[in-house]
Amino acid sequence: MLEVKTPEEVLRLIETKFKPLGRTENVPLSAALGRVLAEPIIAQEYVPDFDRSTVDGYACRAADTFGCSDAIPAILSVTGQVLMGESADFALSRDTCAYVPTGGAIPKGADCAVMIEYTEDYGDGTVGIMKPCAPGMNLIFRGDDVSPGKEILRNGRVLTAQDIGALAAIGKTSVPVVCRVKVGVISTGDELVPPDATPGPGQVRDVNGPLLTALLEAFGAEVINYGIVVDDEELLRQKMQVAAQECNAVIISGGSSVGVKDATCRIIESMGELLLHGIAIKPGKPTIMGKAGNKPLIGLPGHPGAACFVAQLFVLPLLGRLMGRKQEGFTVTAELTESLGANHGREQINACHLLHEGGKILASPIRSKSGLITQLAGVDGFFIISRDCEGLPKGAQVQVYLY
Amino acid sequence: MLEVKTPEEVLRLIETKFKPLGRTENVPLSAALGRVLAEPIIAQEYVPDFDRSTVDGYACRAADTFGCSDAIPAILSVTGQVLMGESADFALSRDTCAYVPTGGAIPKGADCAVMIEYTEDYGDGTVGIMKPCAPGMNLIFRGDDVSPGKEILRNGRVLTAQDIGALAAIGKTSVPVVCRVKVGVISTGDELVPPDATPGPGQVRDVNGPLLTALLEAFGAEVINYGIVVDDEELLRQKMQVAAQECNAVIISGGSSVGVKDATCRIIESMGELLLHGIAIKPGKPTIMGKAGNKPLIGLPGHPGAACFVAQLFVLPLLGRLMGRKQEGFTVTAELTESLGANHGREQINACHLLHEGGKILASPIRSKSGLITQLAGVDGFFIISRDCEGLPKGAQVQVYLY
Repeated sequence: MLEVKTPEEVLRLIETKFKPLGRTENVPLSAALGRVLAEPIIAQEYVPDFDRSTVDGYACRAADTFGCSDAIPAILSVTGQVLMGESADFALSRDTCAYVPTGGAIPKGADCAVMIEYTEDYGDGTVGIMKPCAPGMNLIFRGDDVSPGKEILRNGRVLTAQDIGALAAIGKTSVPVVCRVKVGVISTGDELVPPDATPGPGQVRDVNGPLLTALLEAFGAEVINYGIVVDDEELLRQKMQVAAQECNAVIISGGSSVGVKDATCRIIESMGELLLHGIAIKPGKPTIMGKAGNKPLIGLPGHPGAACFVAQLFVLPLLGRLMGRKQEGFTVTAELTESLGANHGREQINACHLLHEGGKILASPIRSKSGLITQLAGVDGFFIISRDCEGLPKGAQVQVYLY
Repeated sequence: MLEVKTPEEVLRLIETKFKPLGRTENVPLSAALGRVLAEPIIAQEYVPDFDRSTVDGYACRAADTFGCSDAIPAILSVTGQVLMGESADFALSRDTCAYVPTGGAIPKGADCAVMIEYTEDYGDGTVGIMKPCAPGMNLIFRGDDVSPGKEILRNGRVLTAQDIGALAAIGKTSVPVVCRVKVGVISTGDELVPPDATPGPGQVRDVNGPLLTALLEAFGAEVINYGIVVDDEELLRQKMQVAAQECNAVIISGGSSVGVKDATCRIIESMGELLLHGIAIKPGKPTIMGKAGNKPLIGLPGHPGAACFVAQLFVLPLLGRLMGRKQEGFTVTAELTESLGANHGREQINACHLLHEGGKILASPIRSKSGLITQLAGVDGFFIISRDCEGLPKGAQVQVYLY
């Protein structure tokens, strides 16, 4: 029998016992949102590729404006006009200027742009500059933003809309991403019926199948839901073997009776190696983890609340490991609305509602003994009370993991 | 000319000038993740629908265990066994008990369950109970979690994986959700080329089209990207009219030159009503908002960094309003890694990286004058410095909106 492990030990186990699958594919930019970048993106070109003005106004030589004022404008001859989207293929000599729009190219010889608000057009081919301009002012130089060789994005990043914008800017319209990890989900329990069935006496609907499928899909996995298997070791073994063949990882939930948990352990041992039997958290203790080659085989608690916490805290990081995902998650800091006791010895997980009040974020803990729906529906996330803590007072700050 | 409005005024404008579209559809549970719930979900049944044990052990009458101990066990006759997923259609009389698995139904007459660890099977049809049990102990009663009439989820909620689980539990496999809002995205600018083209002299790639498309799709909108339109008032008018006919909202970005901004205003006025010309934020001031009927017509700044901030702060709430979405967003509290100046008079928005260090979350601000890619790629979010603030010291707490 393996010992119960702490959450930190479980996360270390995930890092040491599993390695990234390393399968990648190229997707068009329009399909890259939320995918895990497979390679670092290195700029091949300059952005912008030419010196640009950041204002509407006149490009000129800064030195020609030194000492000018409203009272004594610098008078410059307008020798050209830059059109948006066209090159400025002329050069400015001393005491000349050229009109440039915001974002327009800057002609050679110019080293600043004066905002149109500080100029006066005399209508005779000259303009007056009312305010001196320093060299470089109101310009973006070629490569100011990015130049060739610069790393734009790291591999392992989950691409955001903003990353998509940056990739568009450098013309990266085919993006190397990690293939979605394929996960098999099995629910077990003689008492389970599908969600669209009406439960008979002693029966309940399968919650973990739909819940885990949605959670893993939202994380970027491809899920095969194998449905419900009754508590029969041989049937369970067959189903797990099929799932392990078709998928990169298998998650079985339920089977909370002692006999079935032991059966799951035996099946995992027969398929590979048992790594873990029990995590020191509440709820979520009866969690099993093993592997067949590099394929994780995971047994989650049957109670949906517990299954959901364990999935978010350990299964998602494990799938992230398989996908080479290097992104950190961030928690929301909130203030507890009421005091809360805790059993020390095990980390205690508590679901909560979040609300904005008076410029603060408040966490209102869910209290429920059975708590299937109460702990899931309409809830914003959960927080963890550390194992050395005997409870938290009202007003304590908690770090909330968002659902 | 309309006055520049504060962010609070813009958000109030959105609430008062636009109303929810009110179009709904039913989707299967497996497609409901991330959708906006159109109606409150009210439970029609009891969950659980029967009294259940939360432990493996023996169901019995609590009174029969009072006063027992290791030394003087209470001896009870085993008169039945409950099978998982089946009803317990027998009743317990005084000094009898029945084996129940975790989650199993409780026979009539029993009012507690004793954990198997505190019992001893004498092998002669009797068991000894070593520890007294209070009435109700280790039981979940019918409807403890949910009973008919209870509101499970509010309309306007964006459905999470956990909500999907709760809906499965009550057998709600067809879910009423708000139809996706359809948004037309137009990029304008003579300097723009599509992301897959190589920019010529004076040209840059269109960033806002792909960026806004991804951002709005991630929010749950359906996006039609109308591509790039050159800075020509008549062409722009035609394109905006087509988009307004085909979509529920139109967003045009770019056209940063004064002439084109004025053209956008004229077009919006000719199509309906101009509501806003300028927001007191930096960057993002040259934002335009109007409407044709209940259809928002929005002009975003051409600079992708600014367009992105304005889209996240104002366009998403506006689309949320159209979708009847009632969800609050939560920010991540982080500590500034360096001091930062601010121009008072306008709210200043600053992109940042986030990192975990020593149990704290740190925000490292992006500093960049041009900042197209630097402000977008690999960035975690942004924070706002209020308009009365002249700057923030290193170590100040900021509220970060995640990308």
